[in-house]
Amino acid sequence: MGDPAGIGPEIVLKSLADKTVYERCNPVVVGDAAVMMKTAKHLNLNCKFNVVSRVKDSKFEYGTIDVLDLGNFKAELVFGKVSAAAGEAGFGSIVKVIELALENQVDATVTAPINKEAIHLAGRIYSGHTEIYAHFTNTKKYAMLLVHENLRIIHVSTHVSLRQACDLVRKDRILEVIELLSEACQMFGIKNPEIGIAGLNPHSSDNGLFGWEEEQEIIPAILEAKRMGFHVEGPVPPDSMFSKAIAGKYDGCVAMYHDQGHIPFKVVGFQWNETRKRMDVNGVNITLGLPIIRVSVDHGTAFEIAGKGIASEEAMSVAIDYASKMAENRTGK
Amino acid sequence: MGDPAGIGPEIVLKSLADKTVYERCNPVVVGDAAVMMKTAKHLNLNCKFNVVSRVKDSKFEYGTIDVLDLGNFKAELVFGKVSAAAGEAGFGSIVKVIELALENQVDATVTAPINKEAIHLAGRIYSGHTEIYAHFTNTKKYAMLLVHENLRIIHVSTHVSLRQACDLVRKDRILEVIELLSEACQMFGIKNPEIGIAGLNPHSSDNGLFGWEEEQEIIPAILEAKRMGFHVEGPVPPDSMFSKAIAGKYDGCVAMYHDQGHIPFKVVGFQWNETRKRMDVNGVNITLGLPIIRVSVDHGTAFEIAGKGIASEEAMSVAIDYASKMAENRTGK
Repeated sequence: MGDPAGIGPEIVLKSLADKTVYERCNPVVVGDAAVMMKTAKHLNLNCKFNVVSRVKDSKFEYGTIDVLDLGNFKAELVFGKVSAAAGEAGFGSIVKVIELALENQVDATVTAPINKEAIHLAGRIYSGHTEIYAHFTNTKKYAMLLVHENLRIIHVSTHVSLRQACDLVRKDRILEVIELLSEACQMFGIKNPEIGIAGLNPHSSDNGLFGWEEEQEIIPAILEAKRMGFHVEGPVPPDSMFSKAIAGKYDGCVAMYHDQGHIPFKVVGFQWNETRKRMDVNGVNITLGLPIIRVSVDHGTAFEIAGKGIASEEAMSVAIDYASKMAENRTGK
Repeated sequence: MGDPAGIGPEIVLKSLADKTVYERCNPVVVGDAAVMMKTAKHLNLNCKFNVVSRVKDSKFEYGTIDVLDLGNFKAELVFGKVSAAAGEAGFGSIVKVIELALENQVDATVTAPINKEAIHLAGRIYSGHTEIYAHFTNTKKYAMLLVHENLRIIHVSTHVSLRQACDLVRKDRILEVIELLSEACQMFGIKNPEIGIAGLNPHSSDNGLFGWEEEQEIIPAILEAKRMGFHVEGPVPPDSMFSKAIAGKYDGCVAMYHDQGHIPFKVVGFQWNETRKRMDVNGVNITLGLPIIRVSVDHGTAFEIAGKGIASEEAMSVAIDYASKMAENRTGK
């Protein structure tokens, strides 16, 4: 469900209005049923609901939205408002889907946006979904993968300062993300992925002229990965790697820090829609390394447009699609 | 001219085959006339040359290419080969255009690619054009601006390690590049540019959660710039700033380090051309802060395709166009 006051409930409802979703998977919304109903009513969405307390009571029929009701939003619904109640409801829906996935009641999980300030107000001190998932699945080695069309970018580090990110460029971690990325590509149906490994410094340090991380950490990781049988290339100068990936040269890319991967991802994935006067956001965020599947939209709660009915469900639809595809390739269903 | 063995001479000749160039400016090629002629012959380009030893002897007529001959390539022309002779010839042509511009014999200069290894072999130890221009014009405060359509990105630092780049994020330097960018925008005809200032850290540090440079250096620079009357906004999270700029929100962007600006620039400017099976490279590189105008293509010598006749002159044409526009707005011609 995501944060009740954000665009999460809206994009969930809109994405389930697409019949093909029900051909690809059996979706069940996990959250507060009253929030989902109020959102539908407020936006004049013509939705029929089937409120359940167990996944197996779902109908999984197009035209009826199954909601596993947690009844956990204890306040008046005000769109666009940061609140502890909304933070707690969003948080609760995440913890529940993790539990359902760990118990194999669901094959994959998809998340809608939450707001960091709201979950902190609720006393849940996490940087975001990824950290909540890592905690509740007791996972130590995980990484963030961003996907937009044929651009698949995994990150050596994410929410740390740029200086700390430089320190985290270590051979072992680079090997770890190469393995995670390669596994993910298999789940997307790419058998022998070609992987581009970015340098850390401009021009990948121009042979050590500025910066030593390529020589000390990145090149040794690349050599080791090649020995292990991975198809890797690098260190590729960071400023040209993503153009090459978009052109089809790499199936996956390893970014050395948050913005190295997020900048190209958002340049292609966030585009101004002149007709609708809004940013169309596309692309998904997948947490790799977890024992369960987790795919998310890669945008926020967008409080400024919550409750207005103008949010784009495109990213949510793509997220559901990816989760289904990954579950199929993992479970062989 | 650029390095004789690269695609420089080819794209210069091809760009001057466009009649409209002669309507916008009076172009004169500076370099080795024999190299230009051999390139034309090798590629079967139908060119007429007017070889001169002084700018004022140029004809500036479409259909005849004026070449200020330096007679400075002392070897056999082998396309795609790194050599001291080619490095020296390319270097010499740069030093000459700088001299001509400083003497007001030309209003602006445009450069074709050189090869760093080649100029180093020739004993000319510079990182690139920018440093050569800074040295020969005795300029201390300069910055690299990348331009692709409505994306205009200036850099706080360029060819230094990422760790050193973090150290170079200083209030005074940020103010300096804001001023340089604002002046450049005036020369492009943008009166009151809206300028986006990126953060250094992911999410611009999320209010100091990871990284302190926003609070200590970037925000103070922004406040000071506002007091000085500049229209600036920031620190904008680096991963969304460039999508916003492309959407038209900013006339110019301040990037805190080389790849922060170069990654989005190349994602939009370097695109695979499926029909022609090559990367089309677009966008230009402008050195700001010099006493003269310098615009360049933002790609390399491309030795792998030199002499094959398949290099795209598009970036060179755009560079000539920018140089003309900047000269007009500066000289009032």
